[in-house]
Order: sequence, then C-alpha cells, then structure tokens
Amino acid sequence: MRLVTVGSVAFDAIESPFGKTDKIVGGAGTFITLASSFFVKEQGIISVVGDDFPASTLENMKAKGIDIQGIQIKAGEKTFFWSGRYHNDMNSRDTLVTELNVLEHFNPIVPQAFQGADYLMLGNLSPQVQRMVIERMKKRPKLIAMDTMNFWMDIALEELKKTMALVDVLIINDEEARQLSGVYSLVKAAKVIRAMGPQIVIIKKGEHGALLFHEENMFFAPALPLEDVFDPTGAGDTFAGGFMGYIAATDDFSFENMKRAIIAGSALASFCVEKFGTQRLLELTKKELNARVKQFVTLGNFEMKEVQ
Amino acid sequence: MRLVTVGSVAFDAIESPFGKTDKIVGGAGTFITLASSFFVKEQGIISVVGDDFPASTLENMKAKGIDIQGIQIKAGEKTFFWSGRYHNDMNSRDTLVTELNVLEHFNPIVPQAFQGADYLMLGNLSPQVQRMVIERMKKRPKLIAMDTMNFWMDIALEELKKTMALVDVLIINDEEARQLSGVYSLVKAAKVIRAMGPQIVIIKKGEHGALLFHEENMFFAPALPLEDVFDPTGAGDTFAGGFMGYIAATDDFSFENMKRAIIAGSALASFCVEKFGTQRLLELTKKELNARVKQFVTLGNFEMKEVQ
Repeated sequence: MRLVTVGSVAFDAIESPFGKTDKIVGGAGTFITLASSFFVKEQGIISVVGDDFPASTLENMKAKGIDIQGIQIKAGEKTFFWSGRYHNDMNSRDTLVTELNVLEHFNPIVPQAFQGADYLMLGNLSPQVQRMVIERMKKRPKLIAMDTMNFWMDIALEELKKTMALVDVLIINDEEARQLSGVYSLVKAAKVIRAMGPQIVIIKKGEHGALLFHEENMFFAPALPLEDVFDPTGAGDTFAGGFMGYIAATDDFSFENMKRAIIAGSALASFCVEKFGTQRLLELTKKELNARVKQFVTLGNFEMKEVQ
Repeated sequence: MRLVTVGSVAFDAIESPFGKTDKIVGGAGTFITLASSFFVKEQGIISVVGDDFPASTLENMKAKGIDIQGIQIKAGEKTFFWSGRYHNDMNSRDTLVTELNVLEHFNPIVPQAFQGADYLMLGNLSPQVQRMVIERMKKRPKLIAMDTMNFWMDIALEELKKTMALVDVLIINDEEARQLSGVYSLVKAAKVIRAMGPQIVIIKKGEHGALLFHEENMFFAPALPLEDVFDPTGAGDTFAGGFMGYIAATDDFSFENMKRAIIAGSALASFCVEKFGTQRLLELTKKELNARVKQFVTLGNFEMKEVQ
C-alpha cells in the first residue's frame, strides 16, 4: 500500500450562479482519492458512510484502483451531508446545511492491508479523528500530510495543534494560514506554522495559485486562469490528492519533486472546477491531464536576460 | 530618445499601519521614470508641477538620466497632491485628499528633443491628456503603453475608449479589468478589452502577480511573497516603468521579451513597497535588482516529469 487517505465520503448539494444540484457525491476523501488515482496505483481510503450511500459510487472508486475496505457502512444511519451556495465571484460561499450524521461518532478503522503504508493523507476532518489514524498506523508513514479548515481553528484549536505537531506537511488556504498564525504576511505565517510542527507548509490561494514552503525554500505555483469556474467544491481536496498521489507514486519528497507534485495537483484542481462535483474528474483522461500540465509549464515559463 | 513618459510628478501623504508621512514626492511619472531608468539610458518625461516642487528632486531625476525638459513649472501654482490611508491588509486604501492643482488644466508639451521616440508610456492621467500626447508625437512610436484607473472609467469612459483605441498595451489591475469589460473571468476580460483596441493587455494583481495577454498567448508572472509590505503607493507605476524601460532598452516587444519585461517590472515593484514613497527606488542598486530578478527565476522554476 503506497498511500492511505482518511477523509469524508459524503453528499453535497450545491448552488452556484451556473445552476443547482440535488444531492450529489462529494466529500474530501472522495476528491482526494479520485485525484491521487491519476498517479498512484495502490491506495486505500478510510471513511464512513450511511446505508443511503450508492453502492455504484463505491464500485466506481474500486474501478479507479481505490481500496475501499476502510469505508465503514453504517446500517440505519445517514451519510454526511453539506449544502452550500456560491456567490457571484465564486470565491466565497455560504454553508446552508451541515448534517454530520455518520461523521459525528466516526471511529476510523485502519484495515490490516493498509498497515505499513508509506504515505498518509489526512483529509479535512476533526483533528481528533485525524490523530487517531496516525496513532493506529503501526509503522509511522514516511510522510504525513494534513488538510484542515478554519472551522477546527475556531472550535478545536488545541486538538488541532496536537495533531499538527505529528505531521510533516500542512495544506491550508491563505485565510486559514493567517488565522492560524495570527500574521498577515504569508511568508511570516509559514514560519510561525513551521514552528508548530509541520516542516512543509502549502498555502492554497485558489485562483491565485499556491505557495510551497519547504524548510528554507519557497516555490510559487500559479493557478491556470480559466474562462469559467463552474463549481469550486472539492478543488482544494483535489489539489491535495493530486499532490500526495504524485509524491506517493514517485516515492520522492524532495523540494524539487514537491514542486512537480504541486503542479500536478494544480492541474487536477483546474479540471475539478469545470463541472459540478466529481463529474469532471470521473471523465478525465490521463492524456487530457498531461496536456494541461504542459499548459502550466508554458504559463510561467520565461528565460531571463540581464540588461546592462 | 528611446522612451517618453507622460505622468504626474506630485506630492503624496501616506498613512499605513507602519507609520505616516508628511508630503513626500510621488506621482505616476516619478515612479515610472525612476523604474525605467534602471534599464533605459535615453528617456524623457512630460509633466507639470507648481513652484512649490523641490528643485533638488528634479535634479535627482536628471542624475538618473531622465530628461526633464518636458516638465512645466507653473509659477504661483501648486503641485498635484494626493493623500491616502492604507488598511491593515495593505490591499485596500481610502483617498483622504485629492488636490488637482496644476493637473487641472495640464496642457502637455512634447519638447522637440522627444519627437521621434520609439516608445511611449502614458501614465495614469485623464484620457484626454493621454491622447493629446499621442497626437502631438509627429511620428507614431513603435509601441504605446497606457495605464489608467477605475476613476476614469467612472467619469470619462467614452474618452477612455477613444484613447484606448490608439494604444498597443493596456496596463490595469484586476478590478479595473473587470469593471472595464463587465466580466469576472480575467481571461474573458482580456478578450473584451483587446476588442477595444490594445492587442496586449497586462493585468496587475498586486501581491498575486500579473497576467500578460499577448495576442493569443498568456503568461503569468508571480509577485515575490514578502515578509513586509511597507507602502504600496507607486508599486503599479514602478511595475509599468520597469516593464517599458526593459522593452525600450532591448528594443524588442516580442511575447518572449515582454515576459522578461514583466519580471523586471515585478522585481522593481517588490522593492518599491519596502519603504515609503520613492525612497527604496532611489537607493536601489543594479546589483540588488539583478539578485532579486534571480529570486523570481527561482520562485517559479520547476522541471516537470510525467508519471505513467
């Protein structure tokens, strides 16, 4: 097993200026593993759903090479449900409904087949649950990455700090980095956060790209400027999944390779927003992905010449 | 004469979370020509000041190789004055005072020595004044670039469109591009703006970098993530000045060279914000500038490898 992910497998209902969905499949764990499946062959997911969750979706995940034996199916319970509405600029959203359901008492189980995995991705969940998974891995993975949200900073900061102290990579957005560190400059924020544990900090800036702080090094990856952003839901998870999938597949977490992994994640995220939910990721081909990665290379490519 | 710039030479008073200045020297024309002086040797400025403007500043400009014979000094009149206060995030500001003074009836005069210049930079001014300068150049420059602001979109849109139709390069920020085009996506906005005249559109995104739309090509230049932004005043003008100075010095406005020019402008702008007003630009050395350009090269540099 190369990569193990823990994260929600859920239902979303989304309203955007482009339309409105019924309950569709979403969840951090879903987006992460779909994204990482473009790179890594042996991966598993730890999650929980209710018996209202479609078996066909679980079959689709299996068909992508995702080992789903870590997904508990709770009889008589309902799957986690989130509903939100995006504003006209697609950069901000209101949460309309959050029904924790099966997530409320989620007790993550690490299947025997997942033990010994080299890479662990902790999708956005309560920091207690994230820490439980770390503790239940008998051998510490080579690299542990963690995504989190302002929600946990608001209600469970001390728990969050305890979990952060155990991970190698923290992936958060710019506003969350500012909230967590208490400073505005992202360069300074990354320093403050690194002092809390994770030696590698990735700050997602949405349409403005992403910053990687790797020990004393800094890398900036642009986001591809798009004509239309249809649904940003899951873009951050897709980015994280692409990143960890690339790292796990190449088994290399040097600074140089992390840069490539961030470009891979950015390219996948740029597809994710093109359609509602997981739709675009499900129909995406490796050929399309490789072509988009080339667009990222072109986008920021220049050869400098000094003028005397 | 390689490059002619028209733009304000003015007084600013700035309040930021880091402090407060008395009247200090500012103005788009000042920042543009100081920035371009790092690249281009033969340049001139067209502007107007009152007799309250310090002769020593004009001498400093001359010492940087800037031909100031196009600066009219109006006896008994006062120099343009702007005062503003930056908010805590340094991304937004309130204008406290605008005294047009000599700018109110500015009648730009193109000195004989400036005729035949290859490159023309129209700093932010009323679009009528910008157009007068184009009309008063006996030979059309090879490349005309124009900066403008939302202010002119609000009060003089038709005049602005007339001037835009005459220029090759439009340099504006993201919010202005959205206002001018009426669309949110910057990719679409650039298309709409290109249909108004300028075939090259540069969209400044402040701390998020800049986008270049050059015919069908797109380039993204990051901004250098900084620990502290002290005073953003003039950063956009410095960017434009560095850009046009680099283009004029190399006499090359191909897409490849425009990318370099944008990096040069971005590097200069990253210095501009380090101190109040023009202070950092005045003390900046070519060696420091070259070292920062190298940081830009490193910041976004990666070599992609496909994963099978």
